[in-house]
Parts: sequence; structure tokens; C-alpha cells
Amino acid sequence: MTSAEQERREADLLDRVVHSFDDCPDPRLRQLMTALVRHLHGFVREVRLTEEEWTKAIEFLTAAGHITDDRRQEFILLSDVLGLSMQTIAVNNEAHGNATEATVFGPFFVANSPEIPIGGDSSGGAPGEPCWVEGTVTDTEGQPVAGARIEVWEADDDGLYDVQYGDDRIAARAHLFTDEGGRYSFWAITPTPYPIPHDGPVGQLLAAVGRSPMRASHLHFMVTAEGLRTLVTHIFVRGDELLGSDTVFGVKESLVKDFRRHAPGPTPDGRAMDRAWSQVTFDIVLAPPLS
Amino acid sequence: MTSAEQERREADLLDRVVHSFDDCPDPRLRQLMTALVRHLHGFVREVRLTEEEWTKAIEFLTAAGHITDDRRQEFILLSDVLGLSMQTIAVNNEAHGNATEATVFGPFFVANSPEIPIGGDSSGGAPGEPCWVEGTVTDTEGQPVAGARIEVWEADDDGLYDVQYGDDRIAARAHLFTDEGGRYSFWAITPTPYPIPHDGPVGQLLAAVGRSPMRASHLHFMVTAEGLRTLVTHIFVRGDELLGSDTVFGVKESLVKDFRRHAPGPTPDGRAMDRAWSQVTFDIVLAPPLS
Repeated sequence: MTSAEQERREADLLDRVVHSFDDCPDPRLRQLMTALVRHLHGFVREVRLTEEEWTKAIEFLTAAGHITDDRRQEFILLSDVLGLSMQTIAVNNEAHGNATEATVFGPFFVANSPEIPIGGDSSGGAPGEPCWVEGTVTDTEGQPVAGARIEVWEADDDGLYDVQYGDDRIAARAHLFTDEGGRYSFWAITPTPYPIPHDGPVGQLLAAVGRSPMRASHLHFMVTAEGLRTLVTHIFVRGDELLGSDTVFGVKESLVKDFRRHAPGPTPDGRAMDRAWSQVTFDIVLAPPLS
Repeated sequence: MTSAEQERREADLLDRVVHSFDDCPDPRLRQLMTALVRHLHGFVREVRLTEEEWTKAIEFLTAAGHITDDRRQEFILLSDVLGLSMQTIAVNNEAHGNATEATVFGPFFVANSPEIPIGGDSSGGAPGEPCWVEGTVTDTEGQPVAGARIEVWEADDDGLYDVQYGDDRIAARAHLFTDEGGRYSFWAITPTPYPIPHDGPVGQLLAAVGRSPMRASHLHFMVTAEGLRTLVTHIFVRGDELLGSDTVFGVKESLVKDFRRHAPGPTPDGRAMDRAWSQVTFDIVLAPPLS
């Protein structure tokens, strides 16, 4: 039970902190900082944070900073597992009619991926079961979008993205463009589940709270087209037992797709596949730009 | 203006994140994490955080992590300038009658300081104007506390703590014990204002929001005594023009003291001081332990 005097001291302090931003020359920065301090002070006061817990928080952030380098971004992982990345995506991709939903970008996108033709192979030799991906890109009026740029990237069968090997390989990432009818198709590998990097402080946090570090199987897409909203999303595999517990909260029902499994045999592009393969259709609808 | 569908998507996401902690075996950790995500999601949704702003936040935390080492703690500075350190102190040191108020610990305390006798010199040769500090330690009933341990530490006239020199010097820090009557006295140096380390991301943040990195002049105390609440506090110098803008929000009116300036001449301990000196009285009242 907090006394009136105690209440007054805490509220006065918050008031002084908020007013310390009064002279901020950038109104947006002032808005961000004052809202941030109100929410963080609200947290400290609500949970009655102990000094020991405060110290643990400082140590956690320090460890996250020290494990972060050019290849490892622990703060993005932290944002991801707290659902903050996904909430930021949600806030910036307001629902628009039948437009395809966005999901987290993740830390593994790399610019300047290899270009492949329609029907080409994005795997770059990465181990995994072949997967034929096809679909269309349209706007919300159903008009096909020709020349849309589609970036795709994914982890391989060992649960690793190319950049995690540290040997400069480029695999399981590529880009291609839709044809005049807004159609696209390519070979990828069937997505499999993998853990986010969990040998650092974020992994320790997940273990302490009894959460799995596993991500549901997914294939990343980023689709850009002149005059339309850029879409960053994944598709997920229907039936994956991790759909309900994806550790970064990326799953949306509309993004769960049927990956049809096939025995060795003929493929949509006329090959005779000598091993099992899968097939998925993903029709992409781009929203108009945000006003 | 957010649509009902958009509201639902954002609220559903937060709900999933909160429930991801349902299996946390430690109830306190579950309380902390669920409250933290509610406040952080509240922030993101309220300000409609952009993806560019999110990226800047990740970059800020990364830079703070990389500048942090054994001698430099940028996350504590961040907590300090957002008033979070002070709010945590406030929450953990509930007002108790006439007990002396606590303030921030700061990053410059070092264990195992030199012991000095009553009337001894804490400066260790640090440059600055001599300052005679005296007072009593009592409990809230006015009973003197004998043998209370008083740790004192401060920046020198150049605005630096000993540990900031990086040469293993020990100066302007010491500890002593109260006598049978709860009395203490020692020589220190008159506190002068100094900036917190501001050559890193926290300094850049302060510059961007138009805030000064300066701390009001102060002398640190930590007072421990068997059976009483440990007190971590400072005393401040009445008349210091920075009292209203202390960058870590450490100033409390009850901790502002008169530092009387004296011309060269006799001192309370019978010396003939050959230079100007100052004098302050700080009577310390320790609260009972927190229940």
C-alpha cells in the first residue's frame, strides 16, 4: 500500500522527466521520448521494480550489446520475441481490404540477391526438398502487376540461413520479376522449422520463461512495385505443429498455405523429379501506398 | 484513424504475446514480462512507431552496447537520463517519516574504498577546494546510531571520478564509521558540477532533445547500519544553478545543503587552513528496514 506522500514523490519525478523534453526542437522526437518515459515509468511503478531486478535488466542489455556484431543482432531478436517487431509491422501496415498481410522482416535479409528468371531456382544448392512456388501479384482491384520485384529468402534444411555459415556463401535467396500477366513461379526448398539463435541472453530469457526458441516453418517474401505499398511477409506451412507457438509471433492465419507433397515424378515445369517435392500457390495482393 | 479491423489485429497480437508467458515457472518473472510487453506495446501503438524509428532504436541500443565496457556503462546512463534509475530508487525507498531521502547510486561507486578515521581526509589528493563535512546518524526516533558505515565518493575539480582516469588511482572516495554518539566528520572537496559521459549515444540523445548533460554539484553517501534501511543518497549545493536541471533527476529539495564558504583561517578541527575552504552539515536519519 503506497502512501499519498509516496504517490506524490513518484508522480512529481515523472512530471519532471516529461518536462525535461520541453525544449526538444523536433516535435516528433519530443512525442516519442515523453511517451516512452511515461510507459517505462508506468512499468517500474506498476510492478514495483526492485533494485536487483533493475540491475538484472542492465546486465541483460549489456550482454545483448556485447553479443551483437555484424552477423548477430540480439536487440532485433529481443524485439522479435517480445512481439514488438510484429506490433511495429502491424502499426505500419494498416489493414486494407483484401491486401496480403505483412509479417516480420527478420534479421536475415541481404540486399543484392541473385536474380533468377521465372521458373528459376532460388536454392543456390542449399540442402532441402525442392518446392515449386507459383502465384500472381495483383492490386486490391484485382489488376495484375507486371514487373513486380519479388525477393525470397529462407533457411535451409539444417535450419540455417546462408549468412549464418560465415563463409560468404549465397544460397536460398534470390529475386525475380512478375511477367506481363503478374505471374511468377520459381523453385525453392520446402521450409522447415528452426530455432532463432538462442545461445545468448535472449535464449536465456526464453528458457527462463518456459518458451521455445523455435520459429514455425516459413518462406520470406518482399514484394515491391511502383505505386503500391511494399509488402514484407512470409508464407507458413499448414499442419506445422509450431504455427501456434512461433517465437516471434509472425504467424497470421491468412499466410498459412497448403504445401502439397508429391512423390518423384513430373513437375509443373515439365521436369521428371527423381525425389519427393512439394508445391504451393501464393497469390499476392499489394495495397495502395500509405497516405 | 484506426479501423476496427486494425484495432483487433493489434490487440490480438498483444494478447498472444502476453499469453506466451503463461507457462513461466516463476510468477514474479511472468508478472514482470507481461507488464513490460503491455507497456512497450502500448508505447508502439500510441505513437504509431514507424519502421524507421524502430530501426533507429535498434541502432541506438547496439551503439550503447558497444560503448559499454568495464569502465563505461551506457545503459545505466540511459536509465539515469530517462529518470528510470531515480524512479526505481523512489519505488524501493518508500517515504518514511523524517528519514533522509535516497537518490541515484550512479555508476562510479567502487567497493573496498580506503577507511579514514573521524576527521580524516577522503580526498586522497584529488584537486579541489577543501570541504569540512560533519553531522550525525540517527534513527527515525532520534536515537544516535553508533558504528554506522558511511561511504563517500565524488568527482574532483576537473569533473572526473578517480575510476575515469584509467590509471588505478584511488581518490575522492573513502569510508568511515560514526562514533558512540552517532557523530561523524571528515574532509572532502567542495562538489563542483560535471557532465555525465556524453561522447556516446546517450550524449547524442541529450543533444538531440536539447538537454544538458550536466549534473548538479553533489557529494555521494551510502550509509549502512545493522537493523536499519541502507541509505544511498547525495547532498547538493544550495545556490548551484543546475539544481533545476540535473540531467539524472537526482535533486530533492531536502538534500540541498548550505555549503558555507570560508576565507583562509582556523578550521573546526583546529587547523590553520592556508586557502579558502567550505563547510557543510548533513544530519542523516535512517529508516527502519523495509518489511
